[in-house]
Amino acid sequence: MKATLMFGAGDVRVTDVPDATIKRPTDAVVRVVRACICGSDLHPFHSMPASAEGRPMGHEAIGVVEDIGADVSNIAKGDFVIVPFALEDNTCVFCREGVHTSCVHGSFLAGGQSEAVRVSQADGSLVKVPGVDENSDNALLASLLMLSDVYLTGWHAALKGRVEAGKTVTVIGDGAVGLSAVLAARQMGAQQIILMGRHESRTNLGREWGATGVVAERGAAGVSKVMALTGGEGSHVVLEAVGHMPAYEQAYGVVRPGGVISRVGVPQYESAPVGVASLFGKNVTLTGGVAPVRGYIEAALPEVLEGRIEPGKVFDVTVGLDGVPAGYAAMDARESLKVMIDPSL
Amino acid sequence: MKATLMFGAGDVRVTDVPDATIKRPTDAVVRVVRACICGSDLHPFHSMPASAEGRPMGHEAIGVVEDIGADVSNIAKGDFVIVPFALEDNTCVFCREGVHTSCVHGSFLAGGQSEAVRVSQADGSLVKVPGVDENSDNALLASLLMLSDVYLTGWHAALKGRVEAGKTVTVIGDGAVGLSAVLAARQMGAQQIILMGRHESRTNLGREWGATGVVAERGAAGVSKVMALTGGEGSHVVLEAVGHMPAYEQAYGVVRPGGVISRVGVPQYESAPVGVASLFGKNVTLTGGVAPVRGYIEAALPEVLEGRIEPGKVFDVTVGLDGVPAGYAAMDARESLKVMIDPSL
Repeated sequence: MKATLMFGAGDVRVTDVPDATIKRPTDAVVRVVRACICGSDLHPFHSMPASAEGRPMGHEAIGVVEDIGADVSNIAKGDFVIVPFALEDNTCVFCREGVHTSCVHGSFLAGGQSEAVRVSQADGSLVKVPGVDENSDNALLASLLMLSDVYLTGWHAALKGRVEAGKTVTVIGDGAVGLSAVLAARQMGAQQIILMGRHESRTNLGREWGATGVVAERGAAGVSKVMALTGGEGSHVVLEAVGHMPAYEQAYGVVRPGGVISRVGVPQYESAPVGVASLFGKNVTLTGGVAPVRGYIEAALPEVLEGRIEPGKVFDVTVGLDGVPAGYAAMDARESLKVMIDPSL
Repeated sequence: MKATLMFGAGDVRVTDVPDATIKRPTDAVVRVVRACICGSDLHPFHSMPASAEGRPMGHEAIGVVEDIGADVSNIAKGDFVIVPFALEDNTCVFCREGVHTSCVHGSFLAGGQSEAVRVSQADGSLVKVPGVDENSDNALLASLLMLSDVYLTGWHAALKGRVEAGKTVTVIGDGAVGLSAVLAARQMGAQQIILMGRHESRTNLGREWGATGVVAERGAAGVSKVMALTGGEGSHVVLEAVGHMPAYEQAYGVVRPGGVISRVGVPQYESAPVGVASLFGKNVTLTGGVAPVRGYIEAALPEVLEGRIEPGKVFDVTVGLDGVPAGYAAMDARESLKVMIDPSL
């Protein structure tokens, strides 16, 4: 089958590999109907050391179950499923506490940018979507695909940030996760949502999804502008969807005393300011993390299936598998917001 | 009047200074009935640069109102009051949101270790205690004094950490704040409370106040022991009452996925690990800060007045003003847990 492998920074190739097969009795094999390229795939695209075997890429997918292991009972061949980027048994103590990304049997999906993918812990991980198949409306499929990671990562940010009516929310980053955080914040009732981003096509989608203000400036100028928009008081909640240190610095610059910074951009740093001058002095809470999207899929499904939200609008390019390397380059160059992959093309 | 001044690291003197007087119409002057030395006073005791004028010490006090400014209306001469360490108008937007330590008219009490002290923003800051005077039971006065800072700083840690029934709580530090955090956690219904500390006289008081286990080890050995006590899962809530980096490292070592680290020890560092390997990867929330004790005093008062809690038990030494320099030395040498000051002695 065809699969996407990364052989090093900037080196993405689509090659023939052995077909995905069941390796453990708790596995399933899913034929990929839609997959996509994640902003976090750009991190190894920038920095991965050269590798002879290559790394299977892709952790977001929806598709049709082609095969199941002997111990799989919740899922059957032919089911249309959402594959969350983090795989889990959905029964362990941490899953029960809502931290599926720390599942004691957990792992991360690898190889979604392929014709098919092996999914471990299939019973716990996969979510069936009744009434949908590979011939369903492309826009619907795009929005369902967003439940495998990105929309629900934005949701996680807003949920951990305790967004609610009456709170001001600042979203840092106008990538797909940042825009999803805007949409999630609106769904949770936030009335003032400030989006920090400077790509107008993206911030326009942000406005459509609920952003009441856009701040294109960065650094101290960006902080000043957000402070002005919040009456000099700062934002109750800051959703940080970038992962680089300047975004973190903006976050504690604009957060209000007693406020919350909720991070979902994967931090590209280990240490950061947390002392009296940044967080402690003004009682700021720092939260967020790798989003346990499995716990959020069921609640989000009717929102998508009944058309109340359309997170799939972040996809501005669709490619077949052969177009994946160019898709990486387009996302890296900021020419594309998010690239969807349809292996049937 | 007599007052305590620090002239540099290790150099605390009690000297004659001009009497405390009203400087602004929102001030009050409080004759000090009890004050104390705070663990945080030991930070300048270790590191303060030499100063010719000296710094007035003491931010915890209870006493009798001697004089009020023209704009003070909630408080009258003769009232017995608790003076919180952070002074505030108690009406600004941040006070209304419960972050009194970020009051737009806020400041910190200075000069409590004296015969009398000027209190700014008296209307907002001072809390009257009816039925109590300087001749009340010494143990009661000691517990009321703990509402000016330390007990309610422990309470703040537990509150921000969302301690509740069914959660495991680890408290790092067996100083007066750490022990207060144990007591507060028990008041909030925690059943398993692990106290990390190695001074047996202190941890014994911790056990009396609700600690179900004591871990004397530090570093990796301490982390292992807490993990074992929590069935290998880690603690839902960690209350960090020290402020040094090793305590922070222990905190993220023992916190459970999805758990909370709530800090009230004033951080003696600005940057700390917060990335994938420490907080982000396991969805740990970092919270806490300078405790807005003013917001908690009214609710805690009946607990003390009706004898349900006795936070004043942390005081193991009482001195007159002349004994204050020796009190600093005793706390610094860990010979005393917490020193109370009775200026009438």
